Amino acid sequence: MSAVQTVLDAGGAGVPRLMERLEQRMAAITSGYGPDLVRHAGETIAAGGKRLRPLLVFLAAGVPPPETDGLVRAAVAVELVHSASLVHDDVLDRAALRRGRPSVMAAGGREQATATGDLLFARAFAELAGGGSADAVRSLSRASSALARGELMQRADAWSAEVSSSRYLERCRLKTGVLFRAACELGAIEGGGAVDALGSFGERIGIAFQILDDVLDITGPPERTGKPQGTDLLDGTVTLPLIIARERDPELAALDLREVRTPAQAVEICEQLAATGALPVARRRALELVAEAKAMLPPLPRRQLDVLELVADGVVSRYT
Amino acid sequence: MSAVQTVLDAGGAGVPRLMERLEQRMAAITSGYGPDLVRHAGETIAAGGKRLRPLLVFLAAGVPPPETDGLVRAAVAVELVHSASLVHDDVLDRAALRRGRPSVMAAGGREQATATGDLLFARAFAELAGGGSADAVRSLSRASSALARGELMQRADAWSAEVSSSRYLERCRLKTGVLFRAACELGAIEGGGAVDALGSFGERIGIAFQILDDVLDITGPPERTGKPQGTDLLDGTVTLPLIIARERDPELAALDLREVRTPAQAVEICEQLAATGALPVARRRALELVAEAKAMLPPLPRRQLDVLELVADGVVSRYT
Repeated sequence: MSAVQTVLDAGGAGVPRLMERLEQRMAAITSGYGPDLVRHAGETIAAGGKRLRPLLVFLAAGVPPPETDGLVRAAVAVELVHSASLVHDDVLDRAALRRGRPSVMAAGGREQATATGDLLFARAFAELAGGGSADAVRSLSRASSALARGELMQRADAWSAEVSSSRYLERCRLKTGVLFRAACELGAIEGGGAVDALGSFGERIGIAFQILDDVLDITGPPERTGKPQGTDLLDGTVTLPLIIARERDPELAALDLREVRTPAQAVEICEQLAATGALPVARRRALELVAEAKAMLPPLPRRQLDVLELVADGVVSRYT
Repeated sequence: MSAVQTVLDAGGAGVPRLMERLEQRMAAITSGYGPDLVRHAGETIAAGGKRLRPLLVFLAAGVPPPETDGLVRAAVAVELVHSASLVHDDVLDRAALRRGRPSVMAAGGREQATATGDLLFARAFAELAGGGSADAVRSLSRASSALARGELMQRADAWSAEVSSSRYLERCRLKTGVLFRAACELGAIEGGGAVDALGSFGERIGIAFQILDDVLDITGPPERTGKPQGTDLLDGTVTLPLIIARERDPELAALDLREVRTPAQAVEICEQLAATGALPVARRRALELVAEAKAMLPPLPRRQLDVLELVADGVVSRYT
């Protein structure tokens, strides 16, 4: 996602400095709890991914953002909640992987990972408590609740042929949107900005981000997405591309997802799904959400507005 | 634990009213998230146990305690963190149970329970954020970190013959003491009392509580403790009674815990362990901690002092 680089440049010299402080703090938290945490969470934290949520925290606070300790803590807190959810998802998904893929879990990995996720989660709130804003704690705890509820919903809906697109969108909101919202809200709180409006912007680009993630799961390529094509199909996760494709292809509509067991089968279904033309429709839904998000931006200084719009566009222009 | 009844009586009419409000709020939280949460957390929450942590929150705030919404929220938050940790422990322990006992986990139970624990955890901080004290959030997040670290420590030390009594005590502090501390701190914050002193009191009785729990795991009887004798032995959890017994009985010292696989074997080891006289020594350690805790109590109104001492005594006089 070179869009991130564009945004980093547009956000000014303060953003890389804040990102550096974020990395240092994240590393300190990992190393502060001994080898177990380093082993289990270190990878997730250090690999880092896009650090999109911390970036949103920074940019929602202002462009250039105020280089305060409170802002760094807020960004760390959001990223820790994200990391905690990845660690727990990883525990859960590895179980699913047994169904058809080679990854083997080390003995005791699941137990350690459950506790590790809890620890990261707790540390997130500890970071935020340092800042002292009850609104910030409320925002992050709402996001954490939503993440867990989204996860429960995903498990409840797994393998189901009955998932509607509105239920899917609600799941995206819970699993991704509300933490993006929290990122923007925390930034706005720290920067003294319009909390609700920036939060609504964040929620919508979060949902768009999730839709695109789900599209990329179908299209790959694995060397860019970092995971095999059709992972969602193998996990029984019903996403928007599949929901749309089923409306268009009776054979896909009749398919019992439980019968998709091997990576090769999954890739085949991905191709059949793409042939229905469902992917551009799903992408369009993501673009609409981004347009809605931009329209919701409050009056802001020109430079901040430009950069937030860049971020919003970046969310749906990945890998295209 | 009829000591709880004694304390409830001594605490005045306000305490049962606060407990009632706690129950209502806990039930509302469980039912507010649909059938999954009710199914998975409902049991843990509704079963209720001793509600010792909420009781500490109330009594640390004053006797009679102020019947404020903030105090109820603080008590709910502490109990939710406790419930979340039980739900996650349950997930982990059920895995261990496979090694030797009949309990079978329903399909998908582990995944649901992980998400459910996360949700309870998040809800705890949401409750607390309503009150608006950063100190309270800090205290609870410290306790939550400690719980997870204690869990990691327990997993790391499982089956080990090398666990010293000081390492054991540190684990008790992390797994139980720090949440008891948070309960007292939260009550003190809400009641305007001596936060540190009441916190130190709480931490010590928490450790004493855990030691007694571990003694009861050896002595049973199951119909009173609600779990089979020797559960810790089967889980590979090295506790103070075992550490002391090993210093006294070379056969126990040479025992590889991994060889204890059946409930019958566990009961046999419990008897051998009791024969060494280790149990009264462990109990004495708990009593010492209770005495230390009482000595740490700050200057307080006579009635509050009496009630807190009753609670402290109750922690180690259970089932005797």
